[in-house]
Amino acid sequence: MIIAVDAMGSDHAPQVEVEGALKFVEENKNVEIVLVGDSKKISEYLNFPHERIKIIHTSETIGSDEEPLKAIKTKKTSSMVMALKEVSEKRADAFVTAGNTGAALAGGLFILGRIKGIERPALSPIFPGEKGEFIMLDIGATSDGKAKYLEQYALLGSAYAETRGINNPRVGLLNIGVEETKGDELRKEAYELLQNNKNINFIGNVEARDIFKGYADVIVTDGFSGNVALKVIEGTAGFVMQVLKTNLLSSLKSKILTFLLKKELKGMKKSLDYRETGGSLLIGVNAPLIKAHGSSNSYAFYNALKLSKTVCENNLIEKIKEKLEN
Amino acid sequence: MIIAVDAMGSDHAPQVEVEGALKFVEENKNVEIVLVGDSKKISEYLNFPHERIKIIHTSETIGSDEEPLKAIKTKKTSSMVMALKEVSEKRADAFVTAGNTGAALAGGLFILGRIKGIERPALSPIFPGEKGEFIMLDIGATSDGKAKYLEQYALLGSAYAETRGINNPRVGLLNIGVEETKGDELRKEAYELLQNNKNINFIGNVEARDIFKGYADVIVTDGFSGNVALKVIEGTAGFVMQVLKTNLLSSLKSKILTFLLKKELKGMKKSLDYRETGGSLLIGVNAPLIKAHGSSNSYAFYNALKLSKTVCENNLIEKIKEKLEN
Repeated sequence: MIIAVDAMGSDHAPQVEVEGALKFVEENKNVEIVLVGDSKKISEYLNFPHERIKIIHTSETIGSDEEPLKAIKTKKTSSMVMALKEVSEKRADAFVTAGNTGAALAGGLFILGRIKGIERPALSPIFPGEKGEFIMLDIGATSDGKAKYLEQYALLGSAYAETRGINNPRVGLLNIGVEETKGDELRKEAYELLQNNKNINFIGNVEARDIFKGYADVIVTDGFSGNVALKVIEGTAGFVMQVLKTNLLSSLKSKILTFLLKKELKGMKKSLDYRETGGSLLIGVNAPLIKAHGSSNSYAFYNALKLSKTVCENNLIEKIKEKLEN
Repeated sequence: MIIAVDAMGSDHAPQVEVEGALKFVEENKNVEIVLVGDSKKISEYLNFPHERIKIIHTSETIGSDEEPLKAIKTKKTSSMVMALKEVSEKRADAFVTAGNTGAALAGGLFILGRIKGIERPALSPIFPGEKGEFIMLDIGATSDGKAKYLEQYALLGSAYAETRGINNPRVGLLNIGVEETKGDELRKEAYELLQNNKNINFIGNVEARDIFKGYADVIVTDGFSGNVALKVIEGTAGFVMQVLKTNLLSSLKSKILTFLLKKELKGMKKSLDYRETGGSLLIGVNAPLIKAHGSSNSYAFYNALKLSKTVCENNLIEKIKEKLEN
């Protein structure tokens, strides 16, 4: 297996990309990595030549504030476009980037291409929940939702969950109430499509406050509200941690007790850390494309590489195609 | 000041309503309360006659799963409709309920009536933030958003924040990125309206992960994504607390240390507890209408009564009318 990596994407590129890659190939002897980016900067963090890490040099990059489509169309020798081409031209099996999200999406669409039958690919992160993981999609690939996209997300998410070992995944529609009649026009229309599609194990609406409760394995929503949900999760978790800290460090006594609970509090932080899942899969394009957080550290990037490997090994793209043919 | 209370609305009615009212009048000597509901059930929790708590008896109620508009139109002697009439017919100054949200909204619209110039009233809870409180609206009064509604929310929210002591409140648009061009069609259109309205101190987009950071005093959004945001906050806070608990109670040692930190952890819980703010104001109707959580305890209901008093004392309705005339 070969993973093509945009080595220049993250806020701390290429350090986190290189360090993540080194840790990853160390643990996965059957994987090779192609780092695409500035060879001089990359070699600051990598003893070259490396047995299973190749560098494809380019000095062009796509910045985080560039207009995505234009960047993909015009910057043919950027690290992102060149790494994507490694995959589209079959020299690599998966693509991982921590760069410009919009450009990664545009690259997925125009370089990897959509799977036949899928109009809009979806960003689909995996979340920890009270009874195991769940997938939520779309969390921002498409801002303006349509009911038929949500139906496609349900099929994509089901295939994804199945490859992660969940049998007959339960699909819920993110909504503002559990009753069938709840929500805006988009939700009402999507509800009907989901209910009438025999290839979807639709369990009805899931309220946003219940997403962690394990009622559904796959939660579908439009990219706008999905992105709001994702970021509110991040914001709230951060706020709660801050309030916790303020309270725990309010006196000398509590500081000492907190110090003695260091291990337990670290365990908590780990369970909640987005860096543990490493990135979101862009599902619905012809090859695994993982978008890692721009502020990823090397551990988060390592986890994104791990996810790309799992997606390859599980033959997700093939599974999706099978599902769409049914 | 007289507050009309739907005494039969909450999951534990009328106990929490009566207990909340008793605590409230005890602390606020200049306030009278009218409890509308089943006098026999109410008197189980109230020594009658009470100096400043009156009962208006009715045995009809509106259930939490009833069709809201129909219930308001047909159940003329329900506790909710009768309490609302106390306000619309000027025998009371504010209305508080923990009952059916949809019915409370319909009652607000059809019994209290909209303020001239406001097409859609908004549910507008107050949240704790890192640098003080902020108001988010709408969080679910209207599912299908329009840009002009969001503009009206900005005016309503600004007036509300001003009456709470915030000078020239900063208004942010909840969005999936900070740049002007971000978001769906609704957001783009709303951005323009907000930017061009001289009566709004618009600071641009606020990402959902930053709502607690204090960049804006008022955050406007459509009712669907606002409701998702609100409930994701609840769900995430609950999930984080559960993970914290699991970790802190993982061994005997950590259990003992946690016990010694009881006070600090309680302080944390208090800072995050929705019961502290008590309820959401339905802003944009002709009188203060507070919707408390259906699962409120008596402390939460007491806080909802407190909020209704503050809104009255601050002359919010008059302030809104002034603002709309400018």
